[in-house]
Amino acid sequence: MNEYPSKVLQDAVESISSLPGVGARSALRLALHLLRQPTDNIHHFASSIDALATDVHYCRECNMIADSERCGICSDSRRDHSVICVVESVRDVMSIEATGQYKGVYHVLGGIISPINGVGPGDLAIDSLVGRLAESGAPTEVILALSGDVEGETTSFYLYRKIAGLASRVSTLARGLGFGDDLEYADSLTLGRSIVNRQEFKP
Amino acid sequence: MNEYPSKVLQDAVESISSLPGVGARSALRLALHLLRQPTDNIHHFASSIDALATDVHYCRECNMIADSERCGICSDSRRDHSVICVVESVRDVMSIEATGQYKGVYHVLGGIISPINGVGPGDLAIDSLVGRLAESGAPTEVILALSGDVEGETTSFYLYRKIAGLASRVSTLARGLGFGDDLEYADSLTLGRSIVNRQEFKP
Repeated sequence: MNEYPSKVLQDAVESISSLPGVGARSALRLALHLLRQPTDNIHHFASSIDALATDVHYCRECNMIADSERCGICSDSRRDHSVICVVESVRDVMSIEATGQYKGVYHVLGGIISPINGVGPGDLAIDSLVGRLAESGAPTEVILALSGDVEGETTSFYLYRKIAGLASRVSTLARGLGFGDDLEYADSLTLGRSIVNRQEFKP
Repeated sequence: MNEYPSKVLQDAVESISSLPGVGARSALRLALHLLRQPTDNIHHFASSIDALATDVHYCRECNMIADSERCGICSDSRRDHSVICVVESVRDVMSIEATGQYKGVYHVLGGIISPINGVGPGDLAIDSLVGRLAESGAPTEVILALSGDVEGETTSFYLYRKIAGLASRVSTLARGLGFGDDLEYADSLTLGRSIVNRQEFKP
């Protein structure tokens, strides 16, 4: 006898265990859970996943996922279209939106320059960013909101050289101790930079 | 703007987070992972889940999931059809099969008697077990391989009263210290029962 009592179950388990962080045992548990659900629920689950392949659009301006050709942010006239925040991924946009502190628009690169993973500048939405800046004509601020690791820094540096002449200001995220962080537990690199980049105290 | 940039993404995240043990953040991570996969992979993932609703059969003899009307175990003439191991779920069959130590057949109850969860004997495949034993005519051993908690014990007791006259032997799983277990760390109930149910030493 096969390890799985049913080819259908085996296929489902193999699909589920292809997800990152889901092992074979968890996948089996999840597949058996789904199997116990009413037929309609299973169909709904499957079709909502299938829709990811067919019904998701990418905003033609900022490359964010959307339900139509232009995302909700780019088509919102109350947003400040003269500030473009460059991020690695869709999730970064969602994280920044969740803060409620940003009123500009975005540009989603769709990845980060990473020679070790075989990702070069040509794989990212960099040309479309350059095109966007060149077309706009208006003075524009670009915020490079990439991660603080080597790949993020490399990408920021690459982008800076590409767009420096096209934007009136290029900025990056403030880095330092987190709000509420205890000095005792801060890593020395972060603490050191927080001292060097100290800011005016505003009581 | 909505919390999700796309209704399609939101639907997928809601489906995935309906799985047990998967929170909203993990569901988003998994949905975005799927979104990055080639279209064909997403379709394959979805259809393998959808097949759980349409293509899974239940063995008409033992109630195990199968790809046809009769499961691989029940249709295997090399298995001993005079020994029936009664288990709660499909997963229990897979666990016992994985040991390679059992050559009989199974009967999957599809649950366990649990008044607190509203599961009564009528919700389980008990009548079909009784029918199976009554029809067979041949002397049959029934192994009650249910969990050792109150619900498992209750179900075993209920089943015993139902089938005692129909089976030539009713047995249950051996319980005691696990192989390799240290006495120091054993719970006293298990250790106590291991002493009471001590077995002949076979060097």
